[in-house]
Amino acid sequence: MILTDIGKLMSSGKCFAVTTHVSPDGDAIGSVLGLYHCLTQIGKNVDVVIDDILPDKYNFLAGYNMIKKADDISKDKKYDCIFVLDSGSEDRIGDSIEIIKNGNIIVNIDHHITNTMFGDINYVDPNAASVGEIIYQLIKINGYDVSKVISECLYTSIITDTGGFRYSNTTSTTFNIAGDLINSGINFTEIANRVFDRKTVPEVKLLSMVMSTLELYYDNKVSVIYLTEDMLYKSGSQYEDAESFINIVRDIDTVDTAIFIKEKEKGTFRISLRSKQIVDVKDIAVAFGGGGHIRAAGCTIVGSKDEVRDKLLAEVKKQLDGIK
Amino acid sequence: MILTDIGKLMSSGKCFAVTTHVSPDGDAIGSVLGLYHCLTQIGKNVDVVIDDILPDKYNFLAGYNMIKKADDISKDKKYDCIFVLDSGSEDRIGDSIEIIKNGNIIVNIDHHITNTMFGDINYVDPNAASVGEIIYQLIKINGYDVSKVISECLYTSIITDTGGFRYSNTTSTTFNIAGDLINSGINFTEIANRVFDRKTVPEVKLLSMVMSTLELYYDNKVSVIYLTEDMLYKSGSQYEDAESFINIVRDIDTVDTAIFIKEKEKGTFRISLRSKQIVDVKDIAVAFGGGGHIRAAGCTIVGSKDEVRDKLLAEVKKQLDGIK
Repeated sequence: MILTDIGKLMSSGKCFAVTTHVSPDGDAIGSVLGLYHCLTQIGKNVDVVIDDILPDKYNFLAGYNMIKKADDISKDKKYDCIFVLDSGSEDRIGDSIEIIKNGNIIVNIDHHITNTMFGDINYVDPNAASVGEIIYQLIKINGYDVSKVISECLYTSIITDTGGFRYSNTTSTTFNIAGDLINSGINFTEIANRVFDRKTVPEVKLLSMVMSTLELYYDNKVSVIYLTEDMLYKSGSQYEDAESFINIVRDIDTVDTAIFIKEKEKGTFRISLRSKQIVDVKDIAVAFGGGGHIRAAGCTIVGSKDEVRDKLLAEVKKQLDGIK
Repeated sequence: MILTDIGKLMSSGKCFAVTTHVSPDGDAIGSVLGLYHCLTQIGKNVDVVIDDILPDKYNFLAGYNMIKKADDISKDKKYDCIFVLDSGSEDRIGDSIEIIKNGNIIVNIDHHITNTMFGDINYVDPNAASVGEIIYQLIKINGYDVSKVISECLYTSIITDTGGFRYSNTTSTTFNIAGDLINSGINFTEIANRVFDRKTVPEVKLLSMVMSTLELYYDNKVSVIYLTEDMLYKSGSQYEDAESFINIVRDIDTVDTAIFIKEKEKGTFRISLRSKQIVDVKDIAVAFGGGGHIRAAGCTIVGSKDEVRDKLLAEVKKQLDGIK
């Protein structure tokens, strides 16, 4: 049993490092800190190393402020064991690779089916919705305490990677673990609020600007919204701040297909496409040299804003009319 | 054990009615239909009666279309047993009270601590986050099958009354039941989408208009948004469509206190107030003749839009400055 083997390493070792992928999300940070707290609770010396900027919104998690960069660690520091979490391959961890070299044993814990099994010990469970779930099982099966701070970290992991129990990767195991975690008395309402609801002033301004462009076509079956460089400038926001806006106009009751036309530079538009039931948006994206899935796809089109919209609408109409 | 007593009534009776409160929400409709499907699966004759308009968004639930009004039922139809769900008192069920009179036994199943115990049999569990959870236990403990259609109904109940597992009423029991329900193969992603994300074109238009009024005060600690009658007219929306907008501006990272100023009629404004940590908004609401809680309160103020805002800001400032 791999998880109990890993437990033996945890109890026998003295000095550990825990790392995860660059662009760390809530599952990465939550699972890394959850394991960190478990190891420190049993008296171990632990460095948490992440080679990237940490998203502010996770700063409520205990231990967030002691997460180090690879540069902060002396090049000759030796570790009995190094944990690499939520990383499908070694090159996902950026400069933390430098630290890994100083580990006696590499333990690779992940849930990506594509994991390259780069560790000395590999525990990869593609059925786990989050690495937080695996860390929970690792702690439990080895008889360690899932304390309140650990529960906060692992709950953050779980809700991040399941979209608050809404993605199809959620399983009854996910729910059972969540139920056990909230019994440790964590403020799960506040955690969900921090993970999902926090926004910035520029984001709210951009939301208003983008939504004011809403256009509807074909008996309100198709919604179109626009993002211009001018809006980013006026709201002080980033291109990425608009990422989720297409969901709002896809979720309009009458709408099947949502089109988001985003100006990347003058005359070049990045297109996001979503649909509910009728239109295969991958087909449309492919027609313009892009790609994706039947319900979510994207492409880039050159032209004026109106030309781009008209081209896309013509393709959507073919499908709505059953021509394609 | 009350739930097994109720089970005996279910197996021995032939003709049942199931009802719930007026203004039915997802817990009311989900639990009523869940129980309906259980009873029909064991061969019983069942009328579901709700004395109100049903929200469209639950029309995906099997059985939704056969829900009756009290008028649809013959006045002299007799029932072996009538179930009243999610209703703290008899007068919450509106005209369905007429049907109740024709019941041999009234079974009152609820989770409101204020329940008046109006039934012949009363099962009231204030610890249950939703009545759906109680119906789940009723079905399980009596050895009936929690089928896929029942699971869809009860999952709808649970996510409605817990806000998608985000309200503090969520318990480990809630999570355990949810885990069991999704194992019946329901499309829980689609259910959550229908319950939480569906919106109308007027709602999206109103969102854009209201958010475009965003003002920030006192180092961005206070956010103010406005709703005018003109916006309702131009967007074709209802006053109620704006209800949740204050959460968006409360959730801005820098904001402690959010103020939503809604024009009820010319010169009269309904005010919603929210806060995160610092300001006691109940104090402010009370100062203007309103009321509420420390983090959510409301009042009505007469004046011009700017006068109303300035009055409110002055009260907020006292608290931010620690004067009050």
